[in-house]
Amino acid sequence: MPWTNTNDRKLRARAEQVIPGGMYGHQSTFLLPDEFPQFFRRAQGARIWDADGNEYIDYMCAYGPNLLGYAHPEVDAAAAAQQRLGDTMTGPSPFMVEFAEALVGMVTHADWAMFCKNGTDATGMAAMVARAHTGRRKIVMATGAYHGAAAWCTPLPSGTLPDDRAHHIFHTYNDIDSLDAAVAAAGDDLAAIFVTPLKHDAFVDQEMPDPAYARHCRDLCDAHGALLVVDDVRAGFRLARDCSWSVVGVEPDLSTWGKLIANGYPISALLGADKARAAASSIYVTGSFWFAAVPMAAGVKTLEILRTTDYLERIEGLGRTLRAGLQEQATAHGFTLRQTGPVQMPQILFADDPDFRKGFGWTLEAMKRGVYLHPWHNMFLCAALTEDDVRQTLSRTDDAFAALKKRGNDLPSTDRLQMILGPH
Amino acid sequence: MPWTNTNDRKLRARAEQVIPGGMYGHQSTFLLPDEFPQFFRRAQGARIWDADGNEYIDYMCAYGPNLLGYAHPEVDAAAAAQQRLGDTMTGPSPFMVEFAEALVGMVTHADWAMFCKNGTDATGMAAMVARAHTGRRKIVMATGAYHGAAAWCTPLPSGTLPDDRAHHIFHTYNDIDSLDAAVAAAGDDLAAIFVTPLKHDAFVDQEMPDPAYARHCRDLCDAHGALLVVDDVRAGFRLARDCSWSVVGVEPDLSTWGKLIANGYPISALLGADKARAAASSIYVTGSFWFAAVPMAAGVKTLEILRTTDYLERIEGLGRTLRAGLQEQATAHGFTLRQTGPVQMPQILFADDPDFRKGFGWTLEAMKRGVYLHPWHNMFLCAALTEDDVRQTLSRTDDAFAALKKRGNDLPSTDRLQMILGPH
Repeated sequence: MPWTNTNDRKLRARAEQVIPGGMYGHQSTFLLPDEFPQFFRRAQGARIWDADGNEYIDYMCAYGPNLLGYAHPEVDAAAAAQQRLGDTMTGPSPFMVEFAEALVGMVTHADWAMFCKNGTDATGMAAMVARAHTGRRKIVMATGAYHGAAAWCTPLPSGTLPDDRAHHIFHTYNDIDSLDAAVAAAGDDLAAIFVTPLKHDAFVDQEMPDPAYARHCRDLCDAHGALLVVDDVRAGFRLARDCSWSVVGVEPDLSTWGKLIANGYPISALLGADKARAAASSIYVTGSFWFAAVPMAAGVKTLEILRTTDYLERIEGLGRTLRAGLQEQATAHGFTLRQTGPVQMPQILFADDPDFRKGFGWTLEAMKRGVYLHPWHNMFLCAALTEDDVRQTLSRTDDAFAALKKRGNDLPSTDRLQMILGPH
Repeated sequence: MPWTNTNDRKLRARAEQVIPGGMYGHQSTFLLPDEFPQFFRRAQGARIWDADGNEYIDYMCAYGPNLLGYAHPEVDAAAAAQQRLGDTMTGPSPFMVEFAEALVGMVTHADWAMFCKNGTDATGMAAMVARAHTGRRKIVMATGAYHGAAAWCTPLPSGTLPDDRAHHIFHTYNDIDSLDAAVAAAGDDLAAIFVTPLKHDAFVDQEMPDPAYARHCRDLCDAHGALLVVDDVRAGFRLARDCSWSVVGVEPDLSTWGKLIANGYPISALLGADKARAAASSIYVTGSFWFAAVPMAAGVKTLEILRTTDYLERIEGLGRTLRAGLQEQATAHGFTLRQTGPVQMPQILFADDPDFRKGFGWTLEAMKRGVYLHPWHNMFLCAALTEDDVRQTLSRTDDAFAALKKRGNDLPSTDRLQMILGPH
């Protein structure tokens, strides 16, 4: 069946009437190539089907939440069993205790857990706990790092006030001197250092954490009595069966989690060390659905699978195959790729592509051939992916490179993206 | 089977280890009578079962989300059908458009919808939209009104900064003079007036909105070019099949929704008028699970049921029966109740009960007899409640009044509550 987008275009026209801008947030296709599908009907394993029935091998995993495969039978069975009993009730279910115990059991630095819904809830709570713990205000974070999308942290300024982020001090990720300068600027008012476990900012190459930088973050927090927060919402459990900074040997005081901790069922979490427990119990935070039982039942099952299977090693193995294959193809077709970050969370950019035209062109060709890739956001691999899927993917990306090469310089402009990114 | 709490006590002891304070947020029993159950295993229709298997007629409805009855067969079937296809995927499903169309079709003032997860997401987005629309900062709200629990709005100060609410100006609900003073204090910097559709603050009597006050809110916003925001997260669709201020004939520019719009499936929404559409499309807000398909499928079905059944009239009828019956019983036993607010969202306080001892004593007696009431938070009735349920309830509350009377002045102190509320 040839690729079509008739239904998608109709849905977009209807959405334009009743949703501002037709769509919003990280799943908007506004900054993607024009024909990227906006609406999806189905997801299974490592595959998604759009509103027109086009099937894709999905390398976005819902922007993270799909870790074990969409509609994972064991996780879904655990969730369905609890759904029949109750989800959001007048109090939490015993699964809340079990899920907290399971997380504390897996994440070395954690002695306690608090559950919420959005990643932004968890990062916001981390800031509150750090401020309650220290009685101070300043939060040091890296320029360009994403810690959520509420007024205090959203990457775009519209609707926000300078007051919302009056006490943020910025430094450059992995740059110890700039970190020292930021901490010095905080003076005796340092509440926390927030870091992502790797640099996974949109539009740029990813950077793995320099172990010396990670240790310096820890040392500075200890020296100043501040809390170290690792924001693991995006990367957690895709790099390790522990906090992602366990791989560099650094334990934070707080870590934030979300997306995949229940394999896509809606729940996020703040984990913390005993040191911060009193502060955590002093803050008042809540949400209508935070104590829902179904995601907690799904989470308990998800963690059991993470602990007892080789999901991580399999994703890494397939990620290496994919990266090597793409590298070889790109070279053969005369392109230079910048493939950065962990293989299971790849960022794939083109060298000499300041306005992302090549990236747009290549991902568009791949999309129309049934491979869903992203031109400027890190991607995600899931454990339902198979060697055969990767082989199919590489066969299609090879064709996509060939098609891109054929177009030469005849690639459409990426105006909307340029509007957001500004001049290069 | 006699009431027991063996399992609940064991779960609390485990929770104490892995959750700060053992529990947090609005579903914590910390400020309820000691023996109130913290953990629940099951919910069906108008009933809940705690971790020990005790069954209750539930007048909290999960603090709002249960409107049509827990595990409503039609809503659950719609949700389950979509769950098999996919929930959080790499993009939204067509149900996002349908759900937005359905809400815009029901809520008179609304031309568009944006979905999120928490009520606090929706109120935070309303503030951002108002600020983006006006280019101004000040938000006028009522003292004691609850608009969520993130740093900028949580009712307790721990972990928050003065900067988080530097531009909030307070007035007294239903008091036009104090509203005028607040708006005057905003000068030319007024972005929005935030109001709850009725005064439903914890610990105090509810107040229905004075229509003159509501109209004055509208007039002031029009005169100053500010946006009027009705925060309908708690009351929406329990008072009307439209925004709750439709009953006083006032249309806001923005309204916030949550809890029950998908009968307990996790989703909330900001609705707005065309006037605010450009501002709404200028803000960047998002969340990992905001575009999940299952709650939207459940929401479409929920709204269909709201439009086509007498759910509202039935809840109101039962609410009137309950209120009248309790009034009669209280008088017969020599107590004076303050029953305020809409009958379907009742607040029940005791007169001459400054430290809530009587309220604690009565709700405890009722709880042990299988009726779950709240001593200081407004309650909620659902459409699964039957006349027989209300008769059973009244039989048990009569016994609870008798037991309370028998105890006379021998009621335990409410220390933890006093610690939060301060001296009277």
